[in-house]
Amino acid sequence: MDGLVLYIGNKNYSSWSFRPWIALTAAGIPFEEQLIPFDFEAGNPRFRDISPTGRVPVLHHGALRVWESLSIIEYAGELFPDAGIWPEDVGDRAMARSISMEMLSGFRALRSACPMNIRREKRAIDLPEGVTADVQRIENIWREVRRRSGGPFLFGGFSAADAMYAPVVNRFDVYDLVSSEDTLEYMSAMQAHPAWVAWRDAALQETWIVPEDEA
Amino acid sequence: MDGLVLYIGNKNYSSWSFRPWIALTAAGIPFEEQLIPFDFEAGNPRFRDISPTGRVPVLHHGALRVWESLSIIEYAGELFPDAGIWPEDVGDRAMARSISMEMLSGFRALRSACPMNIRREKRAIDLPEGVTADVQRIENIWREVRRRSGGPFLFGGFSAADAMYAPVVNRFDVYDLVSSEDTLEYMSAMQAHPAWVAWRDAALQETWIVPEDEA
Repeated sequence: MDGLVLYIGNKNYSSWSFRPWIALTAAGIPFEEQLIPFDFEAGNPRFRDISPTGRVPVLHHGALRVWESLSIIEYAGELFPDAGIWPEDVGDRAMARSISMEMLSGFRALRSACPMNIRREKRAIDLPEGVTADVQRIENIWREVRRRSGGPFLFGGFSAADAMYAPVVNRFDVYDLVSSEDTLEYMSAMQAHPAWVAWRDAALQETWIVPEDEA
Repeated sequence: MDGLVLYIGNKNYSSWSFRPWIALTAAGIPFEEQLIPFDFEAGNPRFRDISPTGRVPVLHHGALRVWESLSIIEYAGELFPDAGIWPEDVGDRAMARSISMEMLSGFRALRSACPMNIRREKRAIDLPEGVTADVQRIENIWREVRRRSGGPFLFGGFSAADAMYAPVVNRFDVYDLVSSEDTLEYMSAMQAHPAWVAWRDAALQETWIVPEDEA
């Protein structure tokens, strides 16, 4: 069987890439990483050969192309069913997918106003309409599932759901968006995870600047 | 085991409800339907008891709540692994999830300009920027996967991926957005499926009007 090759964008900025990268890394799934520094323009012709959507992340597995962050994670979970990508309990797994897809399809106000930016120094910004509601909903989600699981991660051990919210942990931190104790406790657990530390250290060594992501 | 209860919105307009409803119905998965006619305002307090997000669709299974259209479909697929919710081949399944999630997270221009409207008479409208690109991308997706599978549906037999694109089939039809033969052939197959016919017939009997969805 050919190995998995994950194409990702800049580690400092590419929130969509961070999700499958941290999910696979935390689960111990072997893959080759191909980092493509670019300006994240959808449809850039250089990427048509690599990705059906012209965007990263995309996973190559032989001739197969898998795109969308969560679909890559699902595929890895199918190939490595014992890696713990999803919670073991079927009800927990359903809830983990629901919150992962709520992230995939929503929270546009937060994602647009506060781009992921690993190297950014913590500083509050003026928040457009909708961001506060997004932050509150995410805090509620985290609180409820961690109350059920007991933590430290959303469903106990690190899972795909944590991976889907990893970029938000950075946003909450660097734009100084939250102060409640349980939220900060979850963020600390995430930021201390070895896979998080590895991504962050690599991001800090990058020198590319994307002006529109410097809010 | 308690039965599944699927809460949905108006059948004429609720595109997000149509997806799990047609997926479960086409797969022969038994569920009770609860239709809630409402104005689709997120966070309507009447729905907080029913849905963690204040929106439909939401699936109840005993005490468990599953939300987001595709997460409901995944959960049904886990409960009924022989119902054919996803394609059998692992590569096809990965591609089916990729295009399903591209639908879940994208095509905002099309979805915003052309709300699903089952009873609408076919009539073209002026299209805002971005709609044509969305339509072309969707036609490309359908063409490529049906060329692989041979049709009539995206992956041969009806699957979750068809369910995720079902509302788009209505949009392409009633806003007169497409003319290529292979696209129309796929749309005909979808609109002739017994589950489609059942949803459409129920939608045509509804009398609610949502002015902002009458483009």
